[in-house]
Amino acid sequence: MTDVTKGFAYVDARIVPISEAKISLLDWGFLHSDATYDVVHVWDGKFFRLDDHLERFFSSMEKLRMSIPYTREELKLVLSNCVKASGLREAYVEMITTRGLPKPGSRDPRTCTNQFFAFAIPFVWITKSQNGLHLIVSSKQRIPVESVDPAVKNYHWLDFVMGQFEAFDRGGETAVVVDSQGNITEGPGFNIFAVKDTEIITPASGILEGITRKTAIELATDYGYKVIQGNLAPEYARCANEVFATSTAGGILPITKIDDKIIGNGAMGPVTQKLQDAYWSLHNNPQYSLAIDY
Amino acid sequence: MTDVTKGFAYVDARIVPISEAKISLLDWGFLHSDATYDVVHVWDGKFFRLDDHLERFFSSMEKLRMSIPYTREELKLVLSNCVKASGLREAYVEMITTRGLPKPGSRDPRTCTNQFFAFAIPFVWITKSQNGLHLIVSSKQRIPVESVDPAVKNYHWLDFVMGQFEAFDRGGETAVVVDSQGNITEGPGFNIFAVKDTEIITPASGILEGITRKTAIELATDYGYKVIQGNLAPEYARCANEVFATSTAGGILPITKIDDKIIGNGAMGPVTQKLQDAYWSLHNNPQYSLAIDY
Repeated sequence: MTDVTKGFAYVDARIVPISEAKISLLDWGFLHSDATYDVVHVWDGKFFRLDDHLERFFSSMEKLRMSIPYTREELKLVLSNCVKASGLREAYVEMITTRGLPKPGSRDPRTCTNQFFAFAIPFVWITKSQNGLHLIVSSKQRIPVESVDPAVKNYHWLDFVMGQFEAFDRGGETAVVVDSQGNITEGPGFNIFAVKDTEIITPASGILEGITRKTAIELATDYGYKVIQGNLAPEYARCANEVFATSTAGGILPITKIDDKIIGNGAMGPVTQKLQDAYWSLHNNPQYSLAIDY
Repeated sequence: MTDVTKGFAYVDARIVPISEAKISLLDWGFLHSDATYDVVHVWDGKFFRLDDHLERFFSSMEKLRMSIPYTREELKLVLSNCVKASGLREAYVEMITTRGLPKPGSRDPRTCTNQFFAFAIPFVWITKSQNGLHLIVSSKQRIPVESVDPAVKNYHWLDFVMGQFEAFDRGGETAVVVDSQGNITEGPGFNIFAVKDTEIITPASGILEGITRKTAIELATDYGYKVIQGNLAPEYARCANEVFATSTAGGILPITKIDDKIIGNGAMGPVTQKLQDAYWSLHNNPQYSLAIDY
């Protein structure tokens, strides 16, 4: 079992054991969930697609009108130092910027000094089972783009959390939430793909465009599949040959049951297997990985 | 200027100075905004409508499937102790339950032990100006009920925060966000009312049903106004005789400009004034208030 007590964090510009990593109760990153974040993983001592994660993180901050006094290169050093302190060769590494605390008595976010945090903990898996996930299509709707821009990676997860409880009630392991038309959007920390013959469909809108999603699209396209970013109806997914999830927390993961319907033959399908293998192989490609100097 | 450094909190079952009040970075109350809260105020050494706030707080926890090992009476004692430690006669008192930390490596909220926090800081005002707020009707939509139940008081505020930035850009002081039909819902921490002759309209759905909102409805009804809980179109509000906000952070507060339109004569109107006076008078009524034994 992964032990999150084994980890290190960067708080108030110092590296501390994860058990000492805390944030003020008054930080609006907590009290207003006024924060953005990104998660990159380390596999076999190397960051995977760190530049892509940093690009998205800085873009998210800009959209929320936040800034931190670090360059991308300085952030790489901070994140590396968290991992090095932990000694972990496989890690889940999160970077966070919060709005911070307002001037005393103020309700104006412009009076806040934004705060930066980071931590490295043992690798987190959405599922470790190779047998695949049992997914429930929840009745909960993903918070729409008109309310909160999903391209800004954010902590507004109550739709996912209540979707998860619905999944547990219905005998499932995790959930996807839907859009206002009932199409599948995404799950807590993962995107979703449905394979039918040589076509692969993944939801196009109302989602966070995951880096693992991007990698899966690139790999599938390279293999000659036609990847369609569009609407994914639950009925379509339930009748697909294969369905898989993509996440920094585990890569490319088979989904073998949706609601009461077994997908394919109930085990990881050949396309998912091929993409999963290619995904992990890519971790050895220096174009995508950055070795940590432990 | 209010000084939030003067405050006390309840963390890990201990009363600590607010500067030491912290939450683990790994608590899902932060990382997933998987939390609920309530805010009650203390005026002249007395809690106002504490029972109503506790009722809502326990109801919110139940809806999120959270629980804490405290009865309502025990919570009253904890909150009183925070206020007493601070010595504040006028205070903003927040109670919070978070999902807590999962079992190491788990993504399952059922493995978490829910955590309780509270704090008392100097009274917070949405505005201290008696001249009234300049409100902007933002293009942002309030997170819909299909995604997150607004009756569960929650920290999903990015719609409000981005609405506030939009308000600042347009020369306003604060914002209300709208529903998918463009009707006004609520602002960051306040409900809204529009007065026209003897009718008062306040949004009915997609909102948190504030305790101050409830008090304003009761008082207005007692005064013989017809209070309608229904749709509030921005055009209607802009042409109202008076508009006011209701919030635990300041009570009943005049809004004297919406977008570019001055409301009434640009000062607090007689109905708002009457309700504001009645609201503060109610604080001396033992039926609504609970004196703190300092």
